[in-house]
Amino acid sequence: MKVERVKGTRDFLPEEMAKRRWVFERIREVFERYGFHEVLTPTFEYTELFKLRSGEEVVKQLYAFLDKGGRDISLRPDMTSSVARLYVGSFQTAPKPIKWYYIANMFRYEEPQSGRFREFWQAGVELIGSDKVEADAEVIALFTESYLSTGLKDFTVNIGDRVLLDEFARMLGVKDDIGLMRLIDKKDKLSREEFVKALKDFGLSDDGVEKVLSLIEIKGNPDEVLPKAEKLFTSEKAKEEIKHLYELVDLLDAYGVSKWIRIDLGIARGFDYYTSVVFEAIAPNDLGIGSIGGGGRYDNLIEVFGGRQTPATGFAIGIERLIPILEWKGLIPEVKLRPDVYVIPIGREMELKKVSIEIVASLRRAGVKADIELTGRRLRKALDYAGRLGVPYVVLVGKKDLEAGRVTIRDMGTGEQLSVKKEDVVEELIGVLGL
Amino acid sequence: MKVERVKGTRDFLPEEMAKRRWVFERIREVFERYGFHEVLTPTFEYTELFKLRSGEEVVKQLYAFLDKGGRDISLRPDMTSSVARLYVGSFQTAPKPIKWYYIANMFRYEEPQSGRFREFWQAGVELIGSDKVEADAEVIALFTESYLSTGLKDFTVNIGDRVLLDEFARMLGVKDDIGLMRLIDKKDKLSREEFVKALKDFGLSDDGVEKVLSLIEIKGNPDEVLPKAEKLFTSEKAKEEIKHLYELVDLLDAYGVSKWIRIDLGIARGFDYYTSVVFEAIAPNDLGIGSIGGGGRYDNLIEVFGGRQTPATGFAIGIERLIPILEWKGLIPEVKLRPDVYVIPIGREMELKKVSIEIVASLRRAGVKADIELTGRRLRKALDYAGRLGVPYVVLVGKKDLEAGRVTIRDMGTGEQLSVKKEDVVEELIGVLGL
Repeated sequence: MKVERVKGTRDFLPEEMAKRRWVFERIREVFERYGFHEVLTPTFEYTELFKLRSGEEVVKQLYAFLDKGGRDISLRPDMTSSVARLYVGSFQTAPKPIKWYYIANMFRYEEPQSGRFREFWQAGVELIGSDKVEADAEVIALFTESYLSTGLKDFTVNIGDRVLLDEFARMLGVKDDIGLMRLIDKKDKLSREEFVKALKDFGLSDDGVEKVLSLIEIKGNPDEVLPKAEKLFTSEKAKEEIKHLYELVDLLDAYGVSKWIRIDLGIARGFDYYTSVVFEAIAPNDLGIGSIGGGGRYDNLIEVFGGRQTPATGFAIGIERLIPILEWKGLIPEVKLRPDVYVIPIGREMELKKVSIEIVASLRRAGVKADIELTGRRLRKALDYAGRLGVPYVVLVGKKDLEAGRVTIRDMGTGEQLSVKKEDVVEELIGVLGL
Repeated sequence: MKVERVKGTRDFLPEEMAKRRWVFERIREVFERYGFHEVLTPTFEYTELFKLRSGEEVVKQLYAFLDKGGRDISLRPDMTSSVARLYVGSFQTAPKPIKWYYIANMFRYEEPQSGRFREFWQAGVELIGSDKVEADAEVIALFTESYLSTGLKDFTVNIGDRVLLDEFARMLGVKDDIGLMRLIDKKDKLSREEFVKALKDFGLSDDGVEKVLSLIEIKGNPDEVLPKAEKLFTSEKAKEEIKHLYELVDLLDAYGVSKWIRIDLGIARGFDYYTSVVFEAIAPNDLGIGSIGGGGRYDNLIEVFGGRQTPATGFAIGIERLIPILEWKGLIPEVKLRPDVYVIPIGREMELKKVSIEIVASLRRAGVKADIELTGRRLRKALDYAGRLGVPYVVLVGKKDLEAGRVTIRDMGTGEQLSVKKEDVVEELIGVLGL
């Protein structure tokens, strides 16, 4: 009987896994260089944990179920809730700031589409315990360098601000500020006409619509667009926040990542829990992939999880968004999975098998990628197999050779064969392989 | 509101994660050296997939649930079923043998106890497409070397055989051979009296009980105990299988792992799908931990999943069993999570922050583990924090120093301070750190 894979899930085969590991290791290396340390929480939590803070959308998409003990549990849709639980449970009195990272799988029940899977991976960080602009800068610099570490250069990190969006809603006299943010968040998915219509349907006056259109124009190099923001906003609170953005941009310059930084005040980043700076990364591509990661400051989140009010900031990189872009750009090195040497006993005698094993074991110990014929097939079939794999060298262990204490190295490219003393085969192969 | 972690699950904190990664990487390195390649299947599958082959026990312990589309799915209780699905779906015509490995988490709803968690990790391999003793030897050699790679030396790999157990049941005239195997599997959990009573309750005659007691005595160095097996078994089939074991032991000698190999004909390894050689690793310990991993040959498994009859062999290492033993023996290197350098701006002026960032960024680029004060706290508190972390060197960035183009390096051990030119601080620190 044959059972299929569940819709929206994937199997990762060796080449794909090797590429993914390459990406994970690049990102991990930068995370650790910045002094973040890895944590891992359980794959499932009580459903109520995820309901505490996630937006409605996420709760609708939870893989929720009752376990055999009748507990209402869910597979994690993201890591932030679990990290907040961990912090509140055990780390409130630990020295601050706390710098944690994770590279883990998440689950959302949504319609599978390009770059969206029901099980997907995120690499993210949380910096807990600082409300200072330095913390925002550290996290955004790390976010930028994470992409750079994979070889990606053609991307921008776009910074928005929830305080300014709130102030903006207040200026417009809009009560449902979250509704307005959700609408602004969708701007890139709508034509200008559709967007204007949506704003009017939301209840904005013509003047209000104009103001929103000015707001979303505040997008580009910080030096050019922050002065525009100073003109648009009048309140003290907004002016303070714009000063904060100037400082942030200045510190990011010290980190050496200015080249990738843009301001985009039209970014809201879906989730309702962000409190000031928000950001996302965009890499131009022909694949229909939008944001490849994002984050921001969420100074109220720890409280939501029952902790003392504690400032925090963080981000998550969407691995299934990033990898297709890296592949499309040819940035992930080709992985060589085939062995460099394949050892074949010519015949079924124990002595031939034993010597073949001794050779493969010595090669492996010497760091050579070596494999051994294990199926008992005939020489011609074994050579066919090595040929199909593209193995450069084969060691043939034959009876007559062995009586003279020798084995044969075959260069699969040229077909040339070389008889060597059994004891010399490892050294000889290391030589021809240039190891 | 505070929500707890689900019972039977764990949070892994940075030190634990670093240790786990160390263990994973050691094992991964050996797996790859042997030419196995990593695959990863989805965390959940249709429940019927796991029912196809798993023992009753495992099905009872499944985390099974209906997803929002009404599909009956389960979190994987092990990897073998998913790998078999993958093989049958896409790899039946691929060149053989297939050598896959995985390092992944599994889920079983069982009562949490020492070394048993509801979410746990396994590192395992599957070798598909060879029925030869060479394949058994390759897999058992790799199994042995995996433990050796972690520094563990005091362990044995105990080899049993399901063909011999079947023959044994036939010799005894027992129809319920699986029942007998389950009973024999439990022998180490019972006293001799209890075991004898259980055998009698099972319906064995006194002679039968005697034979079982002789069987489980066939345990020890292959050279010593295989001759005993030759005496106990009389059928041709059994004699063939014992010859197979002699060959296996001989090939394992060629791999250089004989020292860890034992025969133990009383091993059945729970699951009903093993067909001949089975094995498990035991490391003596005071922690109440039994088997730290096991595997065997399962030549009928692929058929059970709807594929053509295909021989296969593999194993899984129980990470939550292995790690406590490695820790107990002090084999996992201490991980140093604290930074080597901590940069503190003395004051809130932008210039101080910017220079501090430039220094930490240069240090990080130079490969120094460096961190920066991000909370805006006063110097004394920042130094306290660095002290609590055990950071060896602090860089102080003060206003006056900076006017002279200098910063101060403080040795946290001696309290000595050294004024250096801003441009020289990276080189100076690399020097004192001996990097």
